[in-house]
Amino acid sequence: MDILPHIRELSRKTDSKILFIVLDGVGGLPQQAGGPSELAAAKTPNLDALAQKGNLGRLTLVHPGFSPGSGPGHLSLFGYDPFIYDVGRGVLSALGLGIDLGPEDVAVRGNFATLAADGTVLDRRAGRPPTEENRRVIAKLRQKIKEIDGVRIELETESEHRFVLILRGAGLGAAVHDTDPQKTGVAPLAARPHDESDQASARTADILNKFSELARKALAGEEKINGVLLRGISKRPLWPTLGEVTGLTPAAIASYPMYRGVASLVGMTALEVEIGEDPDAPQGKLRAIKNAWDDYDYFYLHFKKTDSTGEDGDFAAKVHKIEMFDELLPELLQLGAEVVAITGDHSTPSVMKGHSWHPVPFLLYGPNLRNDEARRFTEDEARKGVLGDLHGTHVLPLLLAHAGKLQKFGA
Amino acid sequence: MDILPHIRELSRKTDSKILFIVLDGVGGLPQQAGGPSELAAAKTPNLDALAQKGNLGRLTLVHPGFSPGSGPGHLSLFGYDPFIYDVGRGVLSALGLGIDLGPEDVAVRGNFATLAADGTVLDRRAGRPPTEENRRVIAKLRQKIKEIDGVRIELETESEHRFVLILRGAGLGAAVHDTDPQKTGVAPLAARPHDESDQASARTADILNKFSELARKALAGEEKINGVLLRGISKRPLWPTLGEVTGLTPAAIASYPMYRGVASLVGMTALEVEIGEDPDAPQGKLRAIKNAWDDYDYFYLHFKKTDSTGEDGDFAAKVHKIEMFDELLPELLQLGAEVVAITGDHSTPSVMKGHSWHPVPFLLYGPNLRNDEARRFTEDEARKGVLGDLHGTHVLPLLLAHAGKLQKFGA
Repeated sequence: MDILPHIRELSRKTDSKILFIVLDGVGGLPQQAGGPSELAAAKTPNLDALAQKGNLGRLTLVHPGFSPGSGPGHLSLFGYDPFIYDVGRGVLSALGLGIDLGPEDVAVRGNFATLAADGTVLDRRAGRPPTEENRRVIAKLRQKIKEIDGVRIELETESEHRFVLILRGAGLGAAVHDTDPQKTGVAPLAARPHDESDQASARTADILNKFSELARKALAGEEKINGVLLRGISKRPLWPTLGEVTGLTPAAIASYPMYRGVASLVGMTALEVEIGEDPDAPQGKLRAIKNAWDDYDYFYLHFKKTDSTGEDGDFAAKVHKIEMFDELLPELLQLGAEVVAITGDHSTPSVMKGHSWHPVPFLLYGPNLRNDEARRFTEDEARKGVLGDLHGTHVLPLLLAHAGKLQKFGA
Repeated sequence: MDILPHIRELSRKTDSKILFIVLDGVGGLPQQAGGPSELAAAKTPNLDALAQKGNLGRLTLVHPGFSPGSGPGHLSLFGYDPFIYDVGRGVLSALGLGIDLGPEDVAVRGNFATLAADGTVLDRRAGRPPTEENRRVIAKLRQKIKEIDGVRIELETESEHRFVLILRGAGLGAAVHDTDPQKTGVAPLAARPHDESDQASARTADILNKFSELARKALAGEEKINGVLLRGISKRPLWPTLGEVTGLTPAAIASYPMYRGVASLVGMTALEVEIGEDPDAPQGKLRAIKNAWDDYDYFYLHFKKTDSTGEDGDFAAKVHKIEMFDELLPELLQLGAEVVAITGDHSTPSVMKGHSWHPVPFLLYGPNLRNDEARRFTEDEARKGVLGDLHGTHVLPLLLAHAGKLQKFGA
């Protein structure tokens, strides 16, 4: 359900501050049955101490059994039900590359494909080329396709066969079907608007068809990468901002483009972070949050490496990243936020080398807590937590309630 | 979700009786971390014994983080999802004052305000006058405004700056925006219908504008209370009754007008209760329920003081009220209801001096129970209960099921 309209009715401004920390993909699994998860294996004296003072629970970010992508996982944590607040794949890919999207721009996720001489698809991923090959081909396309019918064409490599196409121009719609036929042996589909009477989307479809044709011509000499399939045609959604809904002045402290982008979708100010040698930039983030402390009252602080190490299947490295966060925690607590919460946007068990659906631990510290038997911030202990099993979208109203920012519902 | 249409399909009449006891605001918090809550501090041998025989769980009445008002909290317990079954603020205030509302009447919540010479709002609450001042001004207004365009005007003091205005007449709509601008330095808004083509609501808006003008003239000589702001313009909702949905013949045993009113909204018969010296009237309630035992099969029994003492911030007094209820419990059990349930309509921790969002314990006793490790009716023990974490709207179908009144869903 969409809880935001109800929150909008009840929220009120106060001086209290909320520090909301997301350890990306922090939930995990044991390496063997009965063994410790990454969180349980990590030595985390500071997290343990906070867990003993705070209240714990577990979050399902999307739905039991559904492994959240980073976009939906974060939207859920920000209070935006990901089944309702749907971001197009093109927009998500653009955000992940740090591409700025205006409200008129159309973002498209492209796959390089191999086409047969008769134009039918031989390989929907062009044999998964190395990313360097992708960059070479993108450079070639950029040379040859700069504008179509007055609309500027921008192309960016994502990885392997994946790229992003941005159309910049006025009067473009995004209600256009994919051209990816989702199978081989048939020709790519023509781009078509969902509704023929939607002129703006018909124009976009026309430009995308011209782009596909121009790309085929430009790539005619290539052995494998000789066609494109277009998907997730979308515009930046215009949602109520977190500020409009809650009265908060929210800031995001994240170094990776995807997370800065998702935060900006809900109206957070993405603070500048000095990155230095470590792209996760814990010290840069700490400086950024300290400098901005007086200017905002909700701080979303993101750490990426708990996810990346899980994706790499490196149990020990994920444990180490958790321990590194634990060392940073006392300085974060010294900021003096009235309400502090720590969780993940999904699980990334290193034994699975990918995102998973398993619930993530949620730790809440602030005023008006209940007694709680959980002693550590781990999957097993969170199960004992007094907050019980919650949905990701429950986090925002709980943070607001404990911060004294949510008035009574009805008399 | 609205479970009532599904219950209506499956409910069947049987001879079994349900006793549903609401201890208002009974959920609480420890006074200091790790200490007992009010329920845990209370000596409750009878509740303990019932908890050991029964099944426990915890209820969220509205949504995690949302502190329920008495209206929404009770509606949830009666099976009416408070996000769907919305009562206007004017109607709730009228119910709280024991004002009878016909289906044609419009109820409005008014605030006395201080207006500047230029008509802009200086203070939206007129400096929070003592309730006696409010009564004096209401008496003055009653003298001068008795009818507008053939519609009878009734005024009642609520408390401090708050009053209730009732319009009694035919052909009135209630889809009218508030006149409270929600800020100072601007003039009160004119009352406007949501939809200009809604004649009945346009008529109500017109009468409310005339009322605001007449009130300003009548209060011209007043120092602080010289204007009115009107909110929550509403009519008594026409919902399916509990009897229609379930086949039950439900009775309410409550002494405070708000709870009698909310029960009557869902079609319960509010029994007469002799009040005597204690407005919570436990002995009067006991006599009322005994006298009516043969005539009804669902008894909603309300006790108020667990909430009032919590609102007062008086931990010891709330503990005492819980213990007083415990002493009454054996006589209630002797009535012989097949199914007995005890819970609250929200938490009112005395450390917070107000309603809170924290889940409330729920105790269910009757046939077909599971094993349960909870030993007491407390927040901590309820967490161990076999019923788990439920929503308030789950209570009605569970009571019906244990009473044998709900048939199989589907073949």
